[in-house]
Amino acid sequence: MPRHKTSLAKKIGLPPGTLLHTGLSRETVPELTVISYDAEQVAERKISPGELSTFRERTGITWLHVKGTYHVPTIEVIGEAFGLHPLVLEDILTPGQRPKLEDYGEYSFFVLMSHTMVDGCLVSEQVSIVLGGDYVLSFQDEHSDLFKPVVERLLNAKGRMRKFGPDYLAYSLIDMVVDHFFGVLEHMGEFIETIEQEVVANPQPSVLHNIHELKTQMLFLRKAVWPLRELIGALERGQLPLFRESTLLYVRDVYDHTAQVIETLEMYREMVSGLLDVYLSSLSNKMNEVIKMLTILSTLFMPLTFVVGLYGMNFKYMPELEWEWGYPVVLSVLGVMTCLMLWFFRRRRWI
Amino acid sequence: MPRHKTSLAKKIGLPPGTLLHTGLSRETVPELTVISYDAEQVAERKISPGELSTFRERTGITWLHVKGTYHVPTIEVIGEAFGLHPLVLEDILTPGQRPKLEDYGEYSFFVLMSHTMVDGCLVSEQVSIVLGGDYVLSFQDEHSDLFKPVVERLLNAKGRMRKFGPDYLAYSLIDMVVDHFFGVLEHMGEFIETIEQEVVANPQPSVLHNIHELKTQMLFLRKAVWPLRELIGALERGQLPLFRESTLLYVRDVYDHTAQVIETLEMYREMVSGLLDVYLSSLSNKMNEVIKMLTILSTLFMPLTFVVGLYGMNFKYMPELEWEWGYPVVLSVLGVMTCLMLWFFRRRRWI
Amino acid sequence: MPRHKTSLAKKIGLPPGTLLHTGLSRETVPELTVISYDAEQVAERKISPGELSTFRERTGITWLHVKGTYHVPTIEVIGEAFGLHPLVLEDILTPGQRPKLEDYGEYSFFVLMSHTMVDGCLVSEQVSIVLGGDYVLSFQDEHSDLFKPVVERLLNAKGRMRKFGPDYLAYSLIDMVVDHFFGVLEHMGEFIETIEQEVVANPQPSVLHNIHELKTQMLFLRKAVWPLRELIGALERGQLPLFRESTLLYVRDVYDHTAQVIETLEMYREMVSGLLDVYLSSLSNKMNEVIKMLTILSTLFMPLTFVVGLYGMNFKYMPELEWEWGYPVVLSVLGVMTCLMLWFFRRRRWI
Amino acid sequence: MPRHKTSLAKKIGLPPGTLLHTGLSRETVPELTVISYDAEQVAERKISPGELSTFRERTGITWLHVKGTYHVPTIEVIGEAFGLHPLVLEDILTPGQRPKLEDYGEYSFFVLMSHTMVDGCLVSEQVSIVLGGDYVLSFQDEHSDLFKPVVERLLNAKGRMRKFGPDYLAYSLIDMVVDHFFGVLEHMGEFIETIEQEVVANPQPSVLHNIHELKTQMLFLRKAVWPLRELIGALERGQLPLFRESTLLYVRDVYDHTAQVIETLEMYREMVSGLLDVYLSSLSNKMNEVIKMLTILSTLFMPLTFVVGLYGMNFKYMPELEWEWGYPVVLSVLGVMTCLMLWFFRRRRWI
Amino acid sequence: MPRHKTSLAKKIGLPPGTLLHTGLSRETVPELTVISYDAEQVAERKISPGELSTFRERTGITWLHVKGTYHVPTIEVIGEAFGLHPLVLEDILTPGQRPKLEDYGEYSFFVLMSHTMVDGCLVSEQVSIVLGGDYVLSFQDEHSDLFKPVVERLLNAKGRMRKFGPDYLAYSLIDMVVDHFFGVLEHMGEFIETIEQEVVANPQPSVLHNIHELKTQMLFLRKAVWPLRELIGALERGQLPLFRESTLLYVRDVYDHTAQVIETLEMYREMVSGLLDVYLSSLSNKMNEVIKMLTILSTLFMPLTFVVGLYGMNFKYMPELEWEWGYPVVLSVLGVMTCLMLWFFRRRRWI
Repeated sequence: MPRHKTSLAKKIGLPPGTLLHTGLSRETVPELTVISYDAEQVAERKISPGELSTFRERTGITWLHVKGTYHVPTIEVIGEAFGLHPLVLEDILTPGQRPKLEDYGEYSFFVLMSHTMVDGCLVSEQVSIVLGGDYVLSFQDEHSDLFKPVVERLLNAKGRMRKFGPDYLAYSLIDMVVDHFFGVLEHMGEFIETIEQEVVANPQPSVLHNIHELKTQMLFLRKAVWPLRELIGALERGQLPLFRESTLLYVRDVYDHTAQVIETLEMYREMVSGLLDVYLSSLSNKMNEVIKMLTILSTLFMPLTFVVGLYGMNFKYMPELEWEWGYPVVLSVLGVMTCLMLWFFRRRRWI
Repeated sequence: MPRHKTSLAKKIGLPPGTLLHTGLSRETVPELTVISYDAEQVAERKISPGELSTFRERTGITWLHVKGTYHVPTIEVIGEAFGLHPLVLEDILTPGQRPKLEDYGEYSFFVLMSHTMVDGCLVSEQVSIVLGGDYVLSFQDEHSDLFKPVVERLLNAKGRMRKFGPDYLAYSLIDMVVDHFFGVLEHMGEFIETIEQEVVANPQPSVLHNIHELKTQMLFLRKAVWPLRELIGALERGQLPLFRESTLLYVRDVYDHTAQVIETLEMYREMVSGLLDVYLSSLSNKMNEVIKMLTILSTLFMPLTFVVGLYGMNFKYMPELEWEWGYPVVLSVLGVMTCLMLWFFRRRRWI
Repeated sequence: MPRHKTSLAKKIGLPPGTLLHTGLSRETVPELTVISYDAEQVAERKISPGELSTFRERTGITWLHVKGTYHVPTIEVIGEAFGLHPLVLEDILTPGQRPKLEDYGEYSFFVLMSHTMVDGCLVSEQVSIVLGGDYVLSFQDEHSDLFKPVVERLLNAKGRMRKFGPDYLAYSLIDMVVDHFFGVLEHMGEFIETIEQEVVANPQPSVLHNIHELKTQMLFLRKAVWPLRELIGALERGQLPLFRESTLLYVRDVYDHTAQVIETLEMYREMVSGLLDVYLSSLSNKMNEVIKMLTILSTLFMPLTFVVGLYGMNFKYMPELEWEWGYPVVLSVLGVMTCLMLWFFRRRRWI
Repeated sequence: MPRHKTSLAKKIGLPPGTLLHTGLSRETVPELTVISYDAEQVAERKISPGELSTFRERTGITWLHVKGTYHVPTIEVIGEAFGLHPLVLEDILTPGQRPKLEDYGEYSFFVLMSHTMVDGCLVSEQVSIVLGGDYVLSFQDEHSDLFKPVVERLLNAKGRMRKFGPDYLAYSLIDMVVDHFFGVLEHMGEFIETIEQEVVANPQPSVLHNIHELKTQMLFLRKAVWPLRELIGALERGQLPLFRESTLLYVRDVYDHTAQVIETLEMYREMVSGLLDVYLSSLSNKMNEVIKMLTILSTLFMPLTFVVGLYGMNFKYMPELEWEWGYPVVLSVLGVMTCLMLWFFRRRRWI
Repeated sequence: MPRHKTSLAKKIGLPPGTLLHTGLSRETVPELTVISYDAEQVAERKISPGELSTFRERTGITWLHVKGTYHVPTIEVIGEAFGLHPLVLEDILTPGQRPKLEDYGEYSFFVLMSHTMVDGCLVSEQVSIVLGGDYVLSFQDEHSDLFKPVVERLLNAKGRMRKFGPDYLAYSLIDMVVDHFFGVLEHMGEFIETIEQEVVANPQPSVLHNIHELKTQMLFLRKAVWPLRELIGALERGQLPLFRESTLLYVRDVYDHTAQVIETLEMYREMVSGLLDVYLSSLSNKMNEVIKMLTILSTLFMPLTFVVGLYGMNFKYMPELEWEWGYPVVLSVLGVMTCLMLWFFRRRRWI
């Protein structure tokens, strides 16, 4: 669970800016896609790290998207080609970063935490974005299709996107990440509803486990969204000169979305902790029911058993035993006792 | 429950500003009402979207009220007629928006969340308001009569409303939404009182369900009111040039009302969580009572049963069995034991 | 309980500033008292609403105190005589307002919530104060003697009060309201102590009810005091030009008092919730005791009952039954078993 | 417990600035000590209130320390001699004030709440300090030796204290009060440790009482320290012109100490509430143990008792009773049943 | 546990700035290491306090690292050699200081709290750093190798460190302290996972103890990290002129790390308190199971025992006893009763 913690701890004592991928190292080469576009044309191409240097001469806007950040040499080459600060490269290579926004003058650097729902599991992935004057670099840990809709919109002739600058592209990527949170929240909302019905209908110990799971997921989500809102809030206040006025209008919109994600999350948290209360008191209720039943039974049978035990004694001189009507009388007495007790329980609303 | 979440998730990957009604789509055409007024006269008319363009030439103040925001073409026509930004139209069409206030220079855009009590159910509805220099546009999701009192006041000759500008009309609509919260709070207050009496008199497991329901409702309400206060606070600080000084006095009043709604809500929440405590400890108390009864019974009958079992043994040489007074003596012993134990319980205040 | 909520809900849809008393309407005419004073002289007089207009011509300071705000015509007459804004009159007539301070230029308007302890009940009452250049208007809902000490100090020759302006009088009224909170707190402190002793000595289910009651009272108090502090804080920061520098020194003092009320209240809340914990765990303790007793008893008598049942069997060939010492041996075995078990319980510190 | 609350309630309706000792009035005359010093010399003298007027002519720094603030005439004389505002005198005479700092231009006025541990009891005492241009007045409620170390350092030739101005003396007194909090915290820390060991080793109901006691003490402490930090924070930001730059360095140090007191206190509070959780769940555990034992016993003996009861029936035709091996067979069956059940419990890890 | 509290309490009444080591005094001489370096060369040397004065004349940057702060004379000598304020020396000698940053003009003073995991125990140690124009002094309580990686990087030719000024060295030391927190967090994360599995698989009372331990550790950690973030935040905002612009970029990085430590810590705290909930309700569940079993057993055997007791009565006239099929009939009745009850339990989903 705290995998990304491990990664940072592994680096203790290394000078800051040392390049070393702290995640799970893998052998496969990362996938580099370049999309060059301006208002008139657009071209998408998969390239190898060696071709990077030639790209900087082109006009228009260049978007370089890197899938898989575990390959240190590739990241180093990109860093050199675009003149990135060692701290930026370090942050790209270290998964489990806190979402942040850093302004390096010529370019700005974003770290985001994307969360998506894959087969009912919450999958988190670090996304780093570098926004320069005429380029955008984006890095994601895994090979997932996080930004596919943005790519399609770019390639699609109808989109307005190509008329805007690289800041609008950066905004679109951030917007994409925020949009994915709604998918996760929707999934959670449905899960909460399921738990709710289960708790009301037939509370099982497994409910507890589900609630605990959900709570942990929410904690992870919260840890990703709060700094994200901070980050977008800073953007909205115009702290990045690279973001044009016209784009800020859209940023304000994303800001509202993150606020909504946070508020929904907080609401869900309270709902879940309310469900726990309901579950716990339904446990108490059940125990009450069971104990009540035990008490009713004992109250019914203990006196009866005493009476039959009484006439099971072997004393020589027990006049009742000799009576002809002794047995029926005792049976009637037992019946009356039972009725009295049932009436007593009924009055107490126990049965 | 998290219906409006679904709607946003549905849009993942679409370019911002794409018009698509994300709520439940319906076929019926929305209802458009136009009220044109100035200090001297007032006219109300139901129109079709086609007639919209002609309306802009008129003098005086125009209020266009749209019931049902699910019909995308209508909203598009309105957006064109009044020159609204695509993001505004998108927000109008997307239910479940976070209440917000956006200044677009020539016009201001409000999104509110109205909550009303309909047949004991909490019904929420998004209300969007566009305030221009001489017009007000208002949009509501459903066909409810949310703003009926405002309409009546406008048509009614006695109201001061017609002497004020469109900002006062916008204020009146916001005030209306806030006023409805008081109705909801009143209903909740009564419900809390009912639960309180039930918890004290005869705590039933259903109490738990009611408390949970109430809590969830409060969470939804809270999610709507907090951003609303923020919004009205921004209004009050004069951030909208379209609001005149004289209207701000009234806005200050609404601000106090939202503050009061929030404080009452927070108070109710604490009261409800107090009720849960009372309910849980009354459960504990009840269990204590039941177990005490079980213990008293066992304490009474177990020794008695042992004694009668003792003289039920079939040993050949049991002198007591032969005694003439054996049986009465044992009966007396049992009686004395019972009295002693009853005295013991009395001293412990168990009975 | 949420009586004043009702009142606001009743007004839904009326134009703001509509005069309509939203509390319980009553027929009796409110009581108007006028005290005119300057440094040399003082005069107190009960007047009828008709005489109001003549009062404005006098020199010196005029204090008009109105007991009973339910009579709309009287309030209207006063509003006209002193030129008050419709919103001010509306607030005076609507009980359950949030404490607030509004500056209308020529005069300032305060709404306070007074809480007093009457026969062990918490009674709340809205107090409205209008402070003008040379007059003070005060309104209270009921006919209680809230401001009697202030009146006496004014009439009393020794007081310094008559040398100060109307702002000092307004301050004195606010101070009076804050002082009453201390009486309420003192009463609560004693009540908490009583509950504390009860919880420790002999926890009864009624404790729970008392704690719940106390908590609800505190919630109401808190709702009144927090905005009050805000209000006095604004005063202290000199936001009202009508308050002279010399009076601000006294306002600072009241501010500290409200801060103290709030801190004491918060402390009481934590103490009360601590008491609830103590009560709940003493319940658990008691149940533990009872169940332990049940277990001890069952452990003692179940084996004994089994043994005597064993020798109650009717098998033809049971050698023990024939033995001459069978009965005494079984009795001794039972005695030894009992002793062993008692020793076992003692070692476990159960008895 | 809420003694000082009583005192403020007693004053309801008196004009502010009325001198009346609201604590427990006593007959003994308070003890006045004057220490006059400059860099070269120092003199300590006990004086009577009558001699006060002559003191103001002297050069150097004068420290007047008053033990016992219950004697109104003495305080009045001091107030006159040093020209103090009536509100200052009122605050000195009223115990239970909220710690505060007030600047009266020529002099500054501090109210502090000192807490010390006396024989395991938390004793609180109000300390008032007036800092003038060349004098310091200090007042304490009781006759304790709160400031003895400061006196000794002044009289002691080695201290640097005499070279500094009266602001350094005032700082030393405040520092003294803060230092005493550490003694209290140390005591609490040890007490928490004791409770911790008790909870783990042998949880007794008395633990609950101790925890409750501790919590209440912490609440009182917190109520004293938070405003104290505020006060010292204001000092540190240089809001008092009477404090020289060189002294502010020391004030920054005290500020850190109060911050540390608060953080330790908050940590202790969480630890104590953690202990309560541990105690409550150990109660639950114990009950589980007891109930498990009861269940094991019942499970063992109920079937056995049934079997022996079965063969205690008096039917004429019960073939088993006639069998020669009937009794041993039943005994073996009982033995096998017991073993089976023990095996079952073992498998469930109950024994 | 509250060891450092003791130390501060021990100083009550001493003048501030008095040098006295308040920790555990030991006899051994502290270890002083000096590393002098500039861009070209580096030299490390262990020195004695007597050689200190000669060091100040050298060019380049001097780093004096002191291990063991308990030796007052050494600290006094260092203080004199570098002209440190008495308050600085006092803070260095007093363990348990709150992390803080103080600017003395010519030099800046940092107090940090380092936490490391040694053999599964959380070990805390105070680290004091003095940053001058061309020197850095660092002090640590114990002889641990806290800063070994920094030393190695300095001595190592490849590091960029020697090209930067002393501010970069101070940054590196702070970064080191923050990095160690990640190690602690990683350890905690693993421990939480272990507890989680234990709680789910087989909840034992020892879980409770572990959770309590973990919570206490987190409280200590939190107390150290929050002021640390504050401190680094102040650094980042450029409050220290000794920190160059180029270094601030790195400080921003450390700031993000502390923020991440805090957020992870808060997340862990919620996870742990969630685990406690899970544990407590699994206790409840277990008790429910046990009581259910007891109830099932009693329900099964109490009626059976009553029936066999009934036919154990010794009445002379009990017709059933005489019947030839009496015994088998009773046996069948008992069997039918058992089946009915089992069916009943099955229907209630108890078995």
